[in-house]
Amino acid sequence: MSEEFSIIGKGVPRVDAVLKATGKAVFGADVSLPGMLYGKILRSTVPHAKILDIDASRALKLPGVKAVITGRDFPWGLKYGFSALYRDQTPLAQDKVRYIGDEVAAVAAIDEDTAEEALDLIKVEYEILPAVLDPFEAMKDGAPLVHDDKPNNICSVANIGFGDVEQGFRESDYVREDEFSTQAIKHGFIEPHAALSHWLDKATIWANKQSPYVASRKMAMALGLKPSQLRLIQTYVGAGFGSVKSDPQSLDFCSLVLSKKTGRPVKIVNTMEDVLVMGEGRHPFYVKVKTGMTKDGMLKAMQVYAVADGGAYTSIGPITIALAAISTDLPYRIPNAKYDAVRVFTNKAYCGSLRGHGVPQVRWALGQQLDMMCDDLRLDFAEVSLKNAVHTGDVTPRGLKLYSCGLSECIEKAVGASEWKQKRGKLPPYRGIGMSVGTYVSGVKISGHNSASCIVRINEDGTASIQTGATDVGQGSSTIVSMIVAEVLGLRMEDITINSGIDTDFTPIDPGTYGSRVSFFSGNAAKLAAEDAKRQLAEEASKLLGVPSEDIIFRDRKVYTANNPEKVLKIDSLVRHVGQKISAENKTVWGRGSFDFDSPYMDFTKGEGNLSPAYAFGVDVIEVEVDPETGKITILNIVGAHDVGKVLNPLGCEGQVSGCWLMCLGQCMFEDLKRDKVDGHVLNPSFLDYKLPTAMDIPLKAKHIFVESNDPNGPFGAKEAGEGASTGLLHAFRNAVADAIGVRIHDLPITPEKVLKAINQKKG
Amino acid sequence: MSEEFSIIGKGVPRVDAVLKATGKAVFGADVSLPGMLYGKILRSTVPHAKILDIDASRALKLPGVKAVITGRDFPWGLKYGFSALYRDQTPLAQDKVRYIGDEVAAVAAIDEDTAEEALDLIKVEYEILPAVLDPFEAMKDGAPLVHDDKPNNICSVANIGFGDVEQGFRESDYVREDEFSTQAIKHGFIEPHAALSHWLDKATIWANKQSPYVASRKMAMALGLKPSQLRLIQTYVGAGFGSVKSDPQSLDFCSLVLSKKTGRPVKIVNTMEDVLVMGEGRHPFYVKVKTGMTKDGMLKAMQVYAVADGGAYTSIGPITIALAAISTDLPYRIPNAKYDAVRVFTNKAYCGSLRGHGVPQVRWALGQQLDMMCDDLRLDFAEVSLKNAVHTGDVTPRGLKLYSCGLSECIEKAVGASEWKQKRGKLPPYRGIGMSVGTYVSGVKISGHNSASCIVRINEDGTASIQTGATDVGQGSSTIVSMIVAEVLGLRMEDITINSGIDTDFTPIDPGTYGSRVSFFSGNAAKLAAEDAKRQLAEEASKLLGVPSEDIIFRDRKVYTANNPEKVLKIDSLVRHVGQKISAENKTVWGRGSFDFDSPYMDFTKGEGNLSPAYAFGVDVIEVEVDPETGKITILNIVGAHDVGKVLNPLGCEGQVSGCWLMCLGQCMFEDLKRDKVDGHVLNPSFLDYKLPTAMDIPLKAKHIFVESNDPNGPFGAKEAGEGASTGLLHAFRNAVADAIGVRIHDLPITPEKVLKAINQKKG
Repeated sequence: MSEEFSIIGKGVPRVDAVLKATGKAVFGADVSLPGMLYGKILRSTVPHAKILDIDASRALKLPGVKAVITGRDFPWGLKYGFSALYRDQTPLAQDKVRYIGDEVAAVAAIDEDTAEEALDLIKVEYEILPAVLDPFEAMKDGAPLVHDDKPNNICSVANIGFGDVEQGFRESDYVREDEFSTQAIKHGFIEPHAALSHWLDKATIWANKQSPYVASRKMAMALGLKPSQLRLIQTYVGAGFGSVKSDPQSLDFCSLVLSKKTGRPVKIVNTMEDVLVMGEGRHPFYVKVKTGMTKDGMLKAMQVYAVADGGAYTSIGPITIALAAISTDLPYRIPNAKYDAVRVFTNKAYCGSLRGHGVPQVRWALGQQLDMMCDDLRLDFAEVSLKNAVHTGDVTPRGLKLYSCGLSECIEKAVGASEWKQKRGKLPPYRGIGMSVGTYVSGVKISGHNSASCIVRINEDGTASIQTGATDVGQGSSTIVSMIVAEVLGLRMEDITINSGIDTDFTPIDPGTYGSRVSFFSGNAAKLAAEDAKRQLAEEASKLLGVPSEDIIFRDRKVYTANNPEKVLKIDSLVRHVGQKISAENKTVWGRGSFDFDSPYMDFTKGEGNLSPAYAFGVDVIEVEVDPETGKITILNIVGAHDVGKVLNPLGCEGQVSGCWLMCLGQCMFEDLKRDKVDGHVLNPSFLDYKLPTAMDIPLKAKHIFVESNDPNGPFGAKEAGEGASTGLLHAFRNAVADAIGVRIHDLPITPEKVLKAINQKKG
Repeated sequence: MSEEFSIIGKGVPRVDAVLKATGKAVFGADVSLPGMLYGKILRSTVPHAKILDIDASRALKLPGVKAVITGRDFPWGLKYGFSALYRDQTPLAQDKVRYIGDEVAAVAAIDEDTAEEALDLIKVEYEILPAVLDPFEAMKDGAPLVHDDKPNNICSVANIGFGDVEQGFRESDYVREDEFSTQAIKHGFIEPHAALSHWLDKATIWANKQSPYVASRKMAMALGLKPSQLRLIQTYVGAGFGSVKSDPQSLDFCSLVLSKKTGRPVKIVNTMEDVLVMGEGRHPFYVKVKTGMTKDGMLKAMQVYAVADGGAYTSIGPITIALAAISTDLPYRIPNAKYDAVRVFTNKAYCGSLRGHGVPQVRWALGQQLDMMCDDLRLDFAEVSLKNAVHTGDVTPRGLKLYSCGLSECIEKAVGASEWKQKRGKLPPYRGIGMSVGTYVSGVKISGHNSASCIVRINEDGTASIQTGATDVGQGSSTIVSMIVAEVLGLRMEDITINSGIDTDFTPIDPGTYGSRVSFFSGNAAKLAAEDAKRQLAEEASKLLGVPSEDIIFRDRKVYTANNPEKVLKIDSLVRHVGQKISAENKTVWGRGSFDFDSPYMDFTKGEGNLSPAYAFGVDVIEVEVDPETGKITILNIVGAHDVGKVLNPLGCEGQVSGCWLMCLGQCMFEDLKRDKVDGHVLNPSFLDYKLPTAMDIPLKAKHIFVESNDPNGPFGAKEAGEGASTGLLHAFRNAVADAIGVRIHDLPITPEKVLKAINQKKG
């Protein structure tokens, strides 16, 4: 494929591979400044209480303690949060605490041990309030209110739909209603949050943020500053997956204010225990779904009721439940749909986005139910999927526009490569195969600044320096952006220098990494910037070569035309000509590009209009074997066929999809954030007890197939890869286990104990 | 003045004032990295010798020593230097040493003491060669050759002239010939050179460079790298004044290669003794000048022969002697001139540029001689200067173009404010007054990339972030660039964020700070970038306000038109509109500007054509009192009238001119780098013995007058301020002392001992 390209479509190793592999990349906790203090945060020990008094006098007397701050050290009542309607967080608790782990006070001391010791000396007087941990209990009249101004603990609702579902059910031959739920899981990144602040002439913070601009804007807001009065410098990021690395959090604010108070740099690094007890995590969902289809498998109607357990604060939750609704539009043509969701406050750590953001939980339910309905009607899941699949050119009833769609091809290729038809229902006992169909956006427009931008400087030696707003949190965006610029300018990868982190003072404004927007938005911005630089160089080359500038080809560090290939200039000579000619036109060539798409800002409650410029699709088939003696599940093989629009970097696409699969299998087989039933405190706050899988726990034998639907608006045709569309694997896994043992296990994770119990129940 | 401006012309404190005054600005020696090693450099102890062998084995055995490097650790024979014709330096001596202080080897160790101790253990075996210290001896046939390929030790020559000097002398009523000389002085910056290198995936160096691009390009050259393969990050710079902070030096290369060799960061900081014994310094000049004028004071011809003592290497010396020739074109109309100069190698530390770069030494001669000729003819120096002064529109015979010239007004204002006519020759005994006329370029085009560029990002809160290539070495360019951008965009100073240093990977390409180019070139680039951003914002405002975009005024954080002032938009609202509208046009506004002037690259040997886009002029009058008992000279008053084109920042202009005066008076009264007559080693390598004056040594009672000739090509009309045009004070001082005591003292500095001796000789 891609013979017209020099770099796009080739397997290019990550530009930061050597630095990361040799341990030299500077991550959040690695940044240090002379004279630095160390901070620690005191967390609430009760799930719900009014703060009556905080006495820090003993802590302040401890030698080495330089400052203690509480909610009173921040603008009183000034809250930050997801949007104007949903601001409910303060850097430290001001009125009350809402979960065990909520931040109450912070200490800066000369070392971590002293800071830790000081925490024990801070006395917090609470007036205990009744707590509510279950979202259904929380919605009842008379339940304790997590936020006094939110009746029935309703954080947000989404009521999205089209057509007439009742009519659709009447037109159906078969209607089935089921209930599903998902457990609480965490992102499982291996680098905890870290912040180092130095409030000199301006508030300055180094932090491992996934969306530095969003985080810095919210930090400024809660500190009563203008956005440009706070500078955030992004370090390398040891993965984000949508966690509070997108947002600011207590540690950021506390390091800033402790630095202002002490006049010294202050570093705070979360422990992994902090990470596991605090917000955010993936929303546990309860999903009731009723689906109607004809006896030959044509979908007629779908009705979904979803309850998301949001925890103590709003965070990004309104998007979570709204985004999840795309499962009623995609990946199947459904003429009538109704989606009603509610996000509920409870006295637990708050939830937010996690790889796929709401979509996995709802697709988990819908994909399973469809599998069950196919079983009931003796239809083939793959054929039903193909029959109902959306296509290029479709506009869903509520307005999602498919400029590209390779779903049918994905189904066909996955079916072929996995030998689905030969295996489904035909495998030996205790072996099973399951299929899933996934879909996801390529960026959504939330609020505020949405466009991406990029600056490309052409250097005198014919190389290029890129300043991108794309934030690489491990997904490889720096490599993709570099490849795009190199391709456009006819350079090689080693000719490209790219900024390794965001500096909100100077690098391009870009809201960051979320919603699978980066390759699409920042990639397009990079392409536009490179093309802008190319245009300027082509104008000069045109004069020198005596050919029309639009005919000039940039390739292999040279410029020439197809008709006159002997008239050739090396790019470095051309750049030196532009930069050194005896003329007032002598200049540095800078290309700039900004990109946005004309979709509307997302409507979180009604969900109308087109959500995203492009949608990706993925079909995953997983084959498992169950040991009937132990209940242990072994993954035999996974085949994934994904429509990523265009494979920019096969190594990147494969890595992203494999990573997503690993996370899905973690949720399916191992991970579970267990909480005490009475006060909600986390019972297993370590990766060992939480059971985060490693690559060794899930050896993946996998085959990656990529379908190139060449989205007309994506950079070189690319769209989302390896986030939401791959999380279908959750239901493929469960479908495969059901195929293997003939029983469906209802609660996640599907552990050997549960498998064994199900086998034995079926036997006896 | 300047009521049309909001910011330009106002006294704006420096943007880095707080950081510098509170000690928080990070200068060269302040940068540190974890695991860092410390480097030290071994210097030659002999003035001229072949290196037969270097034995570092004992040093390497010293515990804590991690590496020793010599000339063999660099590409053999790969030399760097000022231009292709004049490359004669290697990072460490490879074939021979050429002065006491020349760099021979370098050590990296775990601390500075260990590195220092290791230097003593390195054994260098020399074959001693005869040395030559005096430039006239050096030019003789048979003299020892500093560089074998440079006969008679001639480094470079400049033969510049126009008209027919013999004819000019014939037309003159009075012809006088004199000889002058200047002593060796140093830059006297208070921050020594420092470099910290970390050669990770690419060669990276933090250094206090005055011209980071020039320095980094030369570093790459000598290491056999492409320019973009080396990244230089500029720290704050504790002044440069044209020293080797413009160029790379041994310490930079050694820290890089020691880092590569050890895999660890390596920091090397010069001691002040290093600074005083090594290159560069101001070239000592011998100047023979023959001038002819009519009896009423019209200049007819001038013939100059200059010999510059260059020391052991070329450095930037060819420019020094070429640039000095402008004293024959300016500040007076001279129809016939001949300037022949030679730069000579000697076995001493090499010389380069120092504030005014060649011009002070020659103007020192010419200005004194003119004063003597006026005395001889009983003419008034001021009247003669006025009579011969160049004017706006003049093109000198060799092609210097004066688009602006306020010299006559400077003379008139200085005469008035200093009471020159009432005082010259009429003061009581032992009081005297002297006048000087100075001139300087506003940037010269040397070679390579000459244009300046700038990027202005408009932030969502209506503020602006600037990435400038201007390098602020203390002259205040960050403040000037910020003012220009704020003025264009109608913002306030607190709305501006500017990069505090250059990062060669990303910030705009700009050759740096030299030749008084920064305000003119980088200022123009900043203005163009701001105007580019303004144009984009105006287009949007035009749509919103329904007025033509060209009528829109940007002022006080608002946009409006003069005709409809009630139709007004706040800039922050406008920016948010541009960045958040529901449209594919949604974008970040970036302005970009590149500036160059269409003057030719400088011809170092013939000096033909226009040297600079603009020329500044200054007239200084100094009044002194001499104590006849002690010889001590007290400065009573200085009046300076300077044509700076346009005063962008009066605080900056006054500061720059005062600083230049202080340096001139240092050379006049105190400073003298004394060398041993036999081997040339520096006898006074400390500021105490060298006698660098402090502000307390020369309390300045001064009056600053600025003449605004509004150069049509300068940013808002501005051109050079406080560099070369103010160095005329050198000869004003000597003229004043002559007026006070009736004797001219020939050798600098004019110390109390010399004054007393002169008074006594005159008496006796």
